[in-house]
Amino acid sequence: MTHRVHNFSPGPAVLPESVLMQVQRDLLALPGVGMSVLEITHRGPAFTEILQSTKDRLRRLLHIPENYQILFLQGGSRLQFSMIPMNLLRGTNRSADYVLTGSWGLKAHEEAVREGSIRVAWDGKSSGYNRFPDDAEWQVDPQAAYVYVTSNETIEGVQFAREPVTGEVPLVCDASSDFLCRPVPIARYGLIYACAQKNAGPAGVTIVIVRDDLLDRSRKDLPGYLNYRAHAKEDSLFNTPPTFAIYLVNLVAGWLLDEIGGLEAMHQQNRRKADLLYRTIDESNGFYSGHAQPASRSMMNVTFRLPNDELQSQFLKLAEQQELVNLAGHRSVGGIRASIYNAMPVASVERLRDFMCEFLQNQRS
Amino acid sequence: MTHRVHNFSPGPAVLPESVLMQVQRDLLALPGVGMSVLEITHRGPAFTEILQSTKDRLRRLLHIPENYQILFLQGGSRLQFSMIPMNLLRGTNRSADYVLTGSWGLKAHEEAVREGSIRVAWDGKSSGYNRFPDDAEWQVDPQAAYVYVTSNETIEGVQFAREPVTGEVPLVCDASSDFLCRPVPIARYGLIYACAQKNAGPAGVTIVIVRDDLLDRSRKDLPGYLNYRAHAKEDSLFNTPPTFAIYLVNLVAGWLLDEIGGLEAMHQQNRRKADLLYRTIDESNGFYSGHAQPASRSMMNVTFRLPNDELQSQFLKLAEQQELVNLAGHRSVGGIRASIYNAMPVASVERLRDFMCEFLQNQRS
Repeated sequence: MTHRVHNFSPGPAVLPESVLMQVQRDLLALPGVGMSVLEITHRGPAFTEILQSTKDRLRRLLHIPENYQILFLQGGSRLQFSMIPMNLLRGTNRSADYVLTGSWGLKAHEEAVREGSIRVAWDGKSSGYNRFPDDAEWQVDPQAAYVYVTSNETIEGVQFAREPVTGEVPLVCDASSDFLCRPVPIARYGLIYACAQKNAGPAGVTIVIVRDDLLDRSRKDLPGYLNYRAHAKEDSLFNTPPTFAIYLVNLVAGWLLDEIGGLEAMHQQNRRKADLLYRTIDESNGFYSGHAQPASRSMMNVTFRLPNDELQSQFLKLAEQQELVNLAGHRSVGGIRASIYNAMPVASVERLRDFMCEFLQNQRS
Repeated sequence: MTHRVHNFSPGPAVLPESVLMQVQRDLLALPGVGMSVLEITHRGPAFTEILQSTKDRLRRLLHIPENYQILFLQGGSRLQFSMIPMNLLRGTNRSADYVLTGSWGLKAHEEAVREGSIRVAWDGKSSGYNRFPDDAEWQVDPQAAYVYVTSNETIEGVQFAREPVTGEVPLVCDASSDFLCRPVPIARYGLIYACAQKNAGPAGVTIVIVRDDLLDRSRKDLPGYLNYRAHAKEDSLFNTPPTFAIYLVNLVAGWLLDEIGGLEAMHQQNRRKADLLYRTIDESNGFYSGHAQPASRSMMNVTFRLPNDELQSQFLKLAEQQELVNLAGHRSVGGIRASIYNAMPVASVERLRDFMCEFLQNQRS
């Protein structure tokens, strides 16, 4: 047996073990193909089948309507931060609304202002980015080119419970760290995207789901790679796509469909896993203090602090000795962060919960 | 034993079998790490070691001087076609010289003209892009921001024998399809780049080697992901890099160093492999007609035609029956193309050579 630790990494992150075993089994040659998936041309029948199957599985999982395209791009969220305003804002003579609920939203805003007129519709700075606002707290500019939100802020551990209502204004969403964690009403979005390395696969591919009519906004003078329309027209084969990463997304989507039983089942499991940790925090009488306000608590990234830095260091050190690894909070905010994405086994979360309880007891005894 | 065919794909392409076996062996958990390389965070010690080792191995293989940075980016050559003029031309009030020797150079030019003033210094169109020009045939604009060349045109099978002399003007080179095929005098270049999926690894990572002083040209108002300086400053961790693809590049570089014995040895092997096929073409009394002029013949992509389309179809069909696959020329030019990158075994090239001889004999008998 291969020895594996409990990996609470925020991303790239844990993958389903059955998926890894399938990758391993077929690594030298895909069955019936005689070549590794790493060696097949993106224009040949083997990859064509993988690409179509991946889109088909994502459509089934998310019930993606026919008038939405699924694109597989490179460059991560960071490139999307620029591509979104380049494609959806440039040439519209409008501005775009940004809802800032954490570090990734701030980075998206930082890139967007280089490309056009941006209005901050809501900014969670005053409360330390610990919640997603209610619809009543901010107003959509009805003339906006789009409204930009981050469904889950990985660093702060802030997730929205549901999409904000934006009326006729297209909702654009960075779902990088909670993609596929629960059912999503795709028709509520103009564009929703996710880099794969949290819930959907390895680093190196970004999945963009975009409504057909928004593709018309892409100007012909955009750099070729940065043009959504070019990628849609060529079915993600505008240039060589990250073939292996797409293959992994395909296997992860297959795991969700066949082993987990779809996104509603995944949601329930994620809810149970997150509740194990949040309950431990809530029952610690303030020893563990959660960062996010309860209504905005992330199912994916559970962020909390201990009473002081020394205890936090001790917590991380002892956790690592029990092979509970990658629990340090992001270097920009500190504290503890347990990333418990789809593929994180319930048993590993239980181990962490037990460790948190023991650590607390040892402090009190 | 896993059954593997002879894969003459132009890219993604054949990888060394020993590399694939190492990937397979460690896929569930890197030794001593307890996590798959697909699951490790890019900011942790395991990936840091991989990244530094990859740079170190490339430096040793190519004798890369200290004043050059090695970057690992996404988006393929297509994104480089835009990033190069965005970073090296924008704001200089100069134009750039492009030498067009085939399809990839043409695509690079197509993107570059969107970004600034471009001069075509030489264009091989009149002879059907079958050669790289002598230095005497064209003149560098001494005021040019850079000179752009493609060292190997994958589609036409045209490779330069040596770098053109460009004096003080920085030479920028797309080496996507012949990177690491032979020693390269890096100091002759301002910037040289390659997407990995031919000689260096899988699809999904592009290696950019750039001289320090050129990084100063990158303007602060560039989109973050498109700014070479941002990537150099963060040592390719400006955002999440394609970790698995970089791991593969590391293993391929290790294979070149330890199993092949460096780039001079690789060059000799590539020379021998290419000669096997070109000799067969030359000795066929015109039955096989090579596309490239002899002095510009590519060691990586051997392109040729048969007397008519029917014979070509028959050739491809019979080759496939002998498990010699992916030999069809690019859809834009037709004919036959045998891509024989570094990892293509000599034995596979011999099999193809034998098949070509038999096919010719059968036509004549």
